[in-house]
Amino acid sequence: MLPKILFRLSLNFGFACIAVVCYLWHEMLDVNLTLAPFSLLGVAIAIFLGFRNNASYARFTEARLLWGNLLITERSLLREVKSLMPDPAEQARYFTSLLIAFTYCLKHQLRKTDMRIDVDRLLAPSERNSVLNSHSPCNTLLLKMGMWLGEQRRLGRISDISFHSIDSNLNHLSSILGGCERISNTPIPFAYSLIVHRTVYLFCALLPFALVSDLHYLTPLVSVFISYTFISLDSLAEELEDPFGMAPNDLPLNAISATIEINLREMIEDDEKPIPMKPDHHCLLS
Amino acid sequence: MLPKILFRLSLNFGFACIAVVCYLWHEMLDVNLTLAPFSLLGVAIAIFLGFRNNASYARFTEARLLWGNLLITERSLLREVKSLMPDPAEQARYFTSLLIAFTYCLKHQLRKTDMRIDVDRLLAPSERNSVLNSHSPCNTLLLKMGMWLGEQRRLGRISDISFHSIDSNLNHLSSILGGCERISNTPIPFAYSLIVHRTVYLFCALLPFALVSDLHYLTPLVSVFISYTFISLDSLAEELEDPFGMAPNDLPLNAISATIEINLREMIEDDEKPIPMKPDHHCLLS
Amino acid sequence: MLPKILFRLSLNFGFACIAVVCYLWHEMLDVNLTLAPFSLLGVAIAIFLGFRNNASYARFTEARLLWGNLLITERSLLREVKSLMPDPAEQARYFTSLLIAFTYCLKHQLRKTDMRIDVDRLLAPSERNSVLNSHSPCNTLLLKMGMWLGEQRRLGRISDISFHSIDSNLNHLSSILGGCERISNTPIPFAYSLIVHRTVYLFCALLPFALVSDLHYLTPLVSVFISYTFISLDSLAEELEDPFGMAPNDLPLNAISATIEINLREMIEDDEKPIPMKPDHHCLLS
Amino acid sequence: MLPKILFRLSLNFGFACIAVVCYLWHEMLDVNLTLAPFSLLGVAIAIFLGFRNNASYARFTEARLLWGNLLITERSLLREVKSLMPDPAEQARYFTSLLIAFTYCLKHQLRKTDMRIDVDRLLAPSERNSVLNSHSPCNTLLLKMGMWLGEQRRLGRISDISFHSIDSNLNHLSSILGGCERISNTPIPFAYSLIVHRTVYLFCALLPFALVSDLHYLTPLVSVFISYTFISLDSLAEELEDPFGMAPNDLPLNAISATIEINLREMIEDDEKPIPMKPDHHCLLS
Amino acid sequence: MLPKILFRLSLNFGFACIAVVCYLWHEMLDVNLTLAPFSLLGVAIAIFLGFRNNASYARFTEARLLWGNLLITERSLLREVKSLMPDPAEQARYFTSLLIAFTYCLKHQLRKTDMRIDVDRLLAPSERNSVLNSHSPCNTLLLKMGMWLGEQRRLGRISDISFHSIDSNLNHLSSILGGCERISNTPIPFAYSLIVHRTVYLFCALLPFALVSDLHYLTPLVSVFISYTFISLDSLAEELEDPFGMAPNDLPLNAISATIEINLREMIEDDEKPIPMKPDHHCLLS
Repeated sequence: MLPKILFRLSLNFGFACIAVVCYLWHEMLDVNLTLAPFSLLGVAIAIFLGFRNNASYARFTEARLLWGNLLITERSLLREVKSLMPDPAEQARYFTSLLIAFTYCLKHQLRKTDMRIDVDRLLAPSERNSVLNSHSPCNTLLLKMGMWLGEQRRLGRISDISFHSIDSNLNHLSSILGGCERISNTPIPFAYSLIVHRTVYLFCALLPFALVSDLHYLTPLVSVFISYTFISLDSLAEELEDPFGMAPNDLPLNAISATIEINLREMIEDDEKPIPMKPDHHCLLS
Repeated sequence: MLPKILFRLSLNFGFACIAVVCYLWHEMLDVNLTLAPFSLLGVAIAIFLGFRNNASYARFTEARLLWGNLLITERSLLREVKSLMPDPAEQARYFTSLLIAFTYCLKHQLRKTDMRIDVDRLLAPSERNSVLNSHSPCNTLLLKMGMWLGEQRRLGRISDISFHSIDSNLNHLSSILGGCERISNTPIPFAYSLIVHRTVYLFCALLPFALVSDLHYLTPLVSVFISYTFISLDSLAEELEDPFGMAPNDLPLNAISATIEINLREMIEDDEKPIPMKPDHHCLLS
Repeated sequence: MLPKILFRLSLNFGFACIAVVCYLWHEMLDVNLTLAPFSLLGVAIAIFLGFRNNASYARFTEARLLWGNLLITERSLLREVKSLMPDPAEQARYFTSLLIAFTYCLKHQLRKTDMRIDVDRLLAPSERNSVLNSHSPCNTLLLKMGMWLGEQRRLGRISDISFHSIDSNLNHLSSILGGCERISNTPIPFAYSLIVHRTVYLFCALLPFALVSDLHYLTPLVSVFISYTFISLDSLAEELEDPFGMAPNDLPLNAISATIEINLREMIEDDEKPIPMKPDHHCLLS
Repeated sequence: MLPKILFRLSLNFGFACIAVVCYLWHEMLDVNLTLAPFSLLGVAIAIFLGFRNNASYARFTEARLLWGNLLITERSLLREVKSLMPDPAEQARYFTSLLIAFTYCLKHQLRKTDMRIDVDRLLAPSERNSVLNSHSPCNTLLLKMGMWLGEQRRLGRISDISFHSIDSNLNHLSSILGGCERISNTPIPFAYSLIVHRTVYLFCALLPFALVSDLHYLTPLVSVFISYTFISLDSLAEELEDPFGMAPNDLPLNAISATIEINLREMIEDDEKPIPMKPDHHCLLS
Repeated sequence: MLPKILFRLSLNFGFACIAVVCYLWHEMLDVNLTLAPFSLLGVAIAIFLGFRNNASYARFTEARLLWGNLLITERSLLREVKSLMPDPAEQARYFTSLLIAFTYCLKHQLRKTDMRIDVDRLLAPSERNSVLNSHSPCNTLLLKMGMWLGEQRRLGRISDISFHSIDSNLNHLSSILGGCERISNTPIPFAYSLIVHRTVYLFCALLPFALVSDLHYLTPLVSVFISYTFISLDSLAEELEDPFGMAPNDLPLNAISATIEINLREMIEDDEKPIPMKPDHHCLLS
């Protein structure tokens, strides 16, 4: 994250140097920018920045919870199918491929990347088009699961009660899909970011001029330090606000999707598992 | 949002100019409005403004959650109907029209706009009147869905268990309706807004007189900057308090309703879909 | 709310005048009550007052949620009964009267007012006594609903599954009842109110003596302004703490009860609906 | 609560007096403990104390919620049993005694008091020992309820669906038991209390030495006032941390247990009800 | 926790001594590091540290809740099995061993310790390998429970409804597993810890230089005291962030696992119970 805020901090450093240089001339004007109003403003900005941090972090946490529930629900769905159907081999394999495709399509939808490769890898040719051409591919996959389940019931392979027990887990998948769409489509009201951004930047720009009369040559050091605290938290809040992005602190959706695929394939004793992802040299997963 | 607060900020600018002009005369009176009591007050106001922001944002978030759940529940309802009924074509079409009408009626009820056009577009003539004349049109639509479902059960098209599984999703719709009505009918206790408003405005009006002895000509700049932070957050909190309104930061109910209609029509392979809404040049949806 | 705090504010104004008058004599004592310790204390009080505000507002919000759920659950119950029973007319009418009586009895229980009038209006003479003499009238009404439902099941009018589906909504009513009783019987620990009250009042009483050395004649103005912020929030928190009371910012239980009655009567096509309540000239509902 | 903190406040008063007396000698040392670092520390302590207050109050609130749910669930269980069983008299009486015994055993377990008297009063001699000798008496009672319910099902008195509907309420009781055990066994991490305690006490002990140069003879008054705010909130947080204790602000488990017993006995028309508890002259219930 | 932060505090003490020694020389430079910017920074750091504390404590609380739910759900599962199966002895014993193995495997997975000893102790030789070789041993155990349950249903020992009632508790276990994995695999975004760490340390290192002009010889005392507050809360937040670790304030998973085993074995009247764990001489459980 440092590179992103480095520019702003060096700008702040520049302002601080100007403040030191101008100090003599500045004094003659009899205009003293004291720290008192900054202290007043600093508390207010800290509280509002804290509010935005809470809101952003809550979005990050909820997004992680939804993807955790995705893993939980898909494992539960497959466990139920396996324990209910007498000889599930082929059927479970088809259902599992829908579950895995749902996972990858959701990832691609949230990151706005191309889902074609994963759909081609996971679904039979006859099913690919209806998914890829749909306005909401994940919802189409859910509908396919529902239709498959309805057919098993009509064929007498599962009872009425079993149908509804599994179907309620499909409703959970539907909730997870809707929850992810909600986070992705409704950002924190734009005015919040704007107000906080503006006040943080103006505050940091004016700060050295208020510090200089007390600190003289130490002004750049202390000014950059204070600005670092405020600007880095502002910048982190912005990053977490869209937890499905690909910035370093966003959710590692690639790794979670791979884990889900490994777990599901192990449950149906399928050996074509993908390799679990390892963190890169920055300890980060993508 | 700026236009709304611009007037207040220019008023504050005016006060600051008066403060600068009066400074000489002011000094003679030996009455010094120092910053110390303002610092005390500023912290208190920041905390209380923070509280109101939290409360308003929680209302906004809950409203968004309810509309997200509306999409989720209607998709789940339709998926269940489609996977349970042998040949659902005509029946599902009627049920879908009730679901879409529920969505639009809820939108119109919350925004207090006229629901006649959408009701005419979506419902058969024989059903329009009972909906439009009802004290609570959305509840009447829910009752119609329940009666339709009860009839399907009596006709033996769905089993007892299936009836209750679908009916529990109607209960979810009922919760969503009740939740929206609650947010819409019960504002944050009026006294909160009043106290916060009054103290913020008085604080901003007195602020320049306290700043002037330190800052002289810089008073208007710093005073407007501090006032901007407080007044804009107060104003944003007021806007989010009623998330169903039509202000720029309110929920884009038109766009969400259109998305729901597109999703549901796609599920029953109906081609009369509305066009998805695009954000306008301010990146905003209505 | 102003009348209630007006007395305290004028007391504060009085103290401020004394402070101004005593100032000369006061100075001679070489005892300076400076603002520094007040600033320390002010932050602490603001945080603790903020805490109590949060706790009170959470109670208010939960109480409103419970009454919103009451509306939702009663509508759902009646919708289920209507869609399940072949010819519900008379039966639904009896069940509806129990639901409406439950609403009004809950209101009277929470406000500690006399429920006799509403019970007489809504229930048959044979049932009134067992309700009025009960230790917990609402629970008795719930038991009556359960017994009625059990009888319908024994008579074969509803299936076993339908019974439990409706019964789970009776459990919801039971939760709502229990939740309201909990809020009503367990206030915020008394020590909180006491500590906050005491510190706020002592703080406001001492404040003018600390302000006077800086502000002279402005002391009463600034002192009353700061006291207003603290005392009004303390007073509002106290009002919201018991959300079922009849103070202006409490929940409009009369209006909500009337809405529930109108909604339920409309669903069974009963024309004896009460008139919806209009806000009075203070925009308030009782 | 005052007695408990009175000692600490008089200690503080003592320190303040020492500070006043030493002032002259103190000045000669040219060591001035100013208020500035205390203001820094005061804000930090207020925030951390606020955090611990939130955590303690959340435990209190959750504990109250669990006991509220206990009342709700036991009433619902008995209502279901009464509406399902043709002639429940004797059976319901046995089941009710298990419910009431569960309530009292939970109370005794949480307060670590002797449950023998209540077990003897409520259960038949043949059942007492298995409960009293169990490692977890409440769980044994739950198991007994489950076995009784299983027997009713095997005897054909309740259907399979009814069994599971009632059993899911037993699961709720199990959740309540587990929740209470969790609160009781897992305090807030000890390090929090320790850090907050230590800093609060050291802060209050040093405070008079910082105040004395400004306030002279007023030091003891102001110092005790500020200490009162911090120490009383610290002390209250400690009290609420274990909400099942017997301190004045803890939960009135005796009164709640009596209410539950009265409610349940009324539902089975048993006249041996206990007398509802009245608050004592301090408005407190035990 | 003290040892861990002792080094940092003595470093701070060292800086404070340097500050005192350098003071004379320092004054000549006409560079005064006043407390005003530190006061600004101190409030900001306190708020951000408070935010991280909240986030860490929320993780700790959720982790404890999940393990509490583990106890609750396993007791409920066993109670249901016992009340449903005519003569459960041998069957319940096998199911219980799976439940206990699930508990210990989850503990070992979260602490990254070797689960071989507990698996060998609890499972039959034929089942050990499939668990130990699995990518997710806990999920494999859940699948085994599901398969066992499915077999009981196929053998007619439990009805369809009973199957789904028990199976929904398996879904709870699956949620608990997923929740623990989520907490364990997704730390608080690394940038938060980094920013807070850096600012706290730099703040504490610079603090004595700002205090020295006011406090002279008292600088080390006050500086270490303020640093203690900030550093110890930073350090505690770090410890609670991973609640499944083995630090003194982490969750006592060994003790909870033993309690679960004792509870379950008592329910099937198995006398091979482990001994409940006693807190060590620091009042801590591992």
